[in-house]
Amino acid sequence: MYNIPTSVPESALPVCNALYTADYVITQNEGRDIIRKGAVAVSDDRILCVGHTDILEILYPEARRVDLGHAVLLPGLVNGHTHVPMSLLRGISDDKKLMDWLTQDIFPRESRLTPELVELGSRFSMAEMIRTGTTSFYDMYMLEDSVFNAADAMGMRAVLGVSLTQFFPSLDAPDWDALQDKIRALAERCRRHPRLRLAITPHAPYTTHPGLLRDCRTLADELDVLFGMHLAETAGETETCLKDFGMRPIPYCESLGLLQPDTTFFHVVEAGIAPDHLREDMELLAEQRCAVVHNPGSNMKLASGVAPLRAMEQAGVQTGLGTDGPSSNNAQNMVREMYLASLLQKVHNLDPQACPAQRALDMATRGGSHALHDPYIGTLEPGMRADFIALSLDSPNMQPVHNPVSNIVYAATGMETILTVVNGRELYRDGKFLCCDYDALCEELKGVYDWIQQG
Amino acid sequence: MYNIPTSVPESALPVCNALYTADYVITQNEGRDIIRKGAVAVSDDRILCVGHTDILEILYPEARRVDLGHAVLLPGLVNGHTHVPMSLLRGISDDKKLMDWLTQDIFPRESRLTPELVELGSRFSMAEMIRTGTTSFYDMYMLEDSVFNAADAMGMRAVLGVSLTQFFPSLDAPDWDALQDKIRALAERCRRHPRLRLAITPHAPYTTHPGLLRDCRTLADELDVLFGMHLAETAGETETCLKDFGMRPIPYCESLGLLQPDTTFFHVVEAGIAPDHLREDMELLAEQRCAVVHNPGSNMKLASGVAPLRAMEQAGVQTGLGTDGPSSNNAQNMVREMYLASLLQKVHNLDPQACPAQRALDMATRGGSHALHDPYIGTLEPGMRADFIALSLDSPNMQPVHNPVSNIVYAATGMETILTVVNGRELYRDGKFLCCDYDALCEELKGVYDWIQQG
Repeated sequence: MYNIPTSVPESALPVCNALYTADYVITQNEGRDIIRKGAVAVSDDRILCVGHTDILEILYPEARRVDLGHAVLLPGLVNGHTHVPMSLLRGISDDKKLMDWLTQDIFPRESRLTPELVELGSRFSMAEMIRTGTTSFYDMYMLEDSVFNAADAMGMRAVLGVSLTQFFPSLDAPDWDALQDKIRALAERCRRHPRLRLAITPHAPYTTHPGLLRDCRTLADELDVLFGMHLAETAGETETCLKDFGMRPIPYCESLGLLQPDTTFFHVVEAGIAPDHLREDMELLAEQRCAVVHNPGSNMKLASGVAPLRAMEQAGVQTGLGTDGPSSNNAQNMVREMYLASLLQKVHNLDPQACPAQRALDMATRGGSHALHDPYIGTLEPGMRADFIALSLDSPNMQPVHNPVSNIVYAATGMETILTVVNGRELYRDGKFLCCDYDALCEELKGVYDWIQQG
Repeated sequence: MYNIPTSVPESALPVCNALYTADYVITQNEGRDIIRKGAVAVSDDRILCVGHTDILEILYPEARRVDLGHAVLLPGLVNGHTHVPMSLLRGISDDKKLMDWLTQDIFPRESRLTPELVELGSRFSMAEMIRTGTTSFYDMYMLEDSVFNAADAMGMRAVLGVSLTQFFPSLDAPDWDALQDKIRALAERCRRHPRLRLAITPHAPYTTHPGLLRDCRTLADELDVLFGMHLAETAGETETCLKDFGMRPIPYCESLGLLQPDTTFFHVVEAGIAPDHLREDMELLAEQRCAVVHNPGSNMKLASGVAPLRAMEQAGVQTGLGTDGPSSNNAQNMVREMYLASLLQKVHNLDPQACPAQRALDMATRGGSHALHDPYIGTLEPGMRADFIALSLDSPNMQPVHNPVSNIVYAATGMETILTVVNGRELYRDGKFLCCDYDALCEELKGVYDWIQQG
């Protein structure tokens, strides 16, 4: 039933610090090998070897053993798009149209944010991601230096996207010049960090004028940091782009030089505007090797529409998966997001073969590597970063195990996570956070009620 | 922020056996009152009183106290449509078209089922429902006497639907006469049971000829048991009905006398066939006070389409919510189903106000009362059956609590369930099943692998 790969690294020199074993190892390698009774050997922050437990036990007899039992080990899930500080506003406003939601309930509160609140909300979202099997994420928000502090403390891997619009003063800076100074300083902090990288992420074409978009792209090139942006989230946005700039969103971005191999676009739903040009636009993204992050939960909840995953796939666009922020999702649970991605495509295309379980898992792992432009995440293979998770198969929804990938995508809730390892470090194990004092964090979060009351 | 209802029963005679308290009580009563620091007083199998903890403590000082702390108490969720034995086949076949899935992977295996396997699969599905906050369900399968045994042992409330088609011999009986005898015997067993009721549930119009459908309805009337059927699950089914009988599914059922106040139809998707007649057909269901059960997870996964919830609501059709069976869903998790119900309507109608959180919760509770034709479930009020659950608010996805209904529908996974009470009896509490030896059940389930191998 399963292939039996055992990849041994050429050099036997690195020391194996820990050997994690489980009933199933989903490698997500090129052949999508699944190993029964498998093991992952870790050397510091890297994966040393992946294979059968009985062989790896012989190779690394001295290693610390962590036997996860009736569980499945797999690459850590990658949340390709979120706004982590927004956990503060989870459930404060739902079931509203996008602009009402933003202008009535979100923007007024965001204008009163402090660095402390942003850091608190970020830590809380990270706790949720760590609890549900996510090891890395691509963030986008204001006061991103506070998100840096949170991610540094919590131990997650992240791309920190500094979000901006043409409207100054912002929470970050009085003007674009001052913001550039801030970005340079944060780039410097990231350059020395093993897990955190910077991105410049203007909000969207409808909030950021073309000159500023070009400036952002130029600064990203200069600082050698990533570039990302919300794009074509709704049909209305695409209409505006056509009206204001005479171009569809993707050709418009190309005209500004934004399409580069380190660019990630979030959403790309573009509902119902330009189906004739869909293939052309997707091929443009594929040619320039831009990544797209799909956010089915947010697109459904805000009624934005259904992203053309098939057209992306056919054109060869690299596609990751994300939750979007916790006040529009309202969770930070990539297991749920895989399920939604698959089911939404099936019902929308009236085809049960659309987005099979394996494709959904690919988007959340291998696709995450593209979304974050990090070739060392997304699979369990020698030399990759030691970012992995384990889901227990003990709960009723996870049995019987006829197909572990099916159980993960179609039956798991995310709460089956019993282990979350980032960069070789255990952040969560067997019901306990090892990266923070979770009870104290919950206590701290209660301060949010006072802040809400003040507004 | 919250209303403060405290309903005290007229007679103070019944003894309060237990007083459950929590930070929030969601009553789901007519006014949808939510009580901060609330309590539910239980007398045997009934709810005695619901109100503020400090008042109920004075009223019932002697009662056993169960303080759930930072949690929300709410009515037990009602799974309006499932096939519980099919947990055996979870994940055995996915991403296939309905007929391929049925004929290649499901039917051949079902033909080899035994009463023991049906009972085992049923107990396993019930464990999942109990674990994720469901207290009652409407089943539909073969060998339903084995499902009776399972539900009797596990302590859940259920309607047991004897499924049949025109094709005999079946797993149940050599012919319709013999099946009728079996149904009569099971009706007798149910009549004496405090939690289990019988239904006659022919499979669908395309598998059960009109004469047999009439016979089923007559027998249900004679035995005073419920009547249910899959209806209009796909556009293809509706086309077939038009071709074979010259009528749309609902008028066809009416012509056979199937529309009665104790009838429940499962699915009613009827994708894209008769939009002009939608209102007319829904009004027919509403006039006859039939219930409909919506199954978004299954409808999405099998790519059946999107049920017209708004048209149902506008016509006044009573609508419950169900998971469908664990091999097409692939879970038995009503919390996930509420989330899907809401999100699918929003994106399908391109309206974020479609199916708000409260509406989704209503379908899973008050709507479940209609689906199961049981007026004593679905709310927390004096005199109702003591079927309730508690979800912990401690996990990261459940905080902050700006709106507990939002957190349950949009952020919960179902695994937050810390208490499941049916008929006054605790079936699950704080990570432990009190209704079965769960480890032994998992051990028993391993037998399923041998059975699969044999086929």
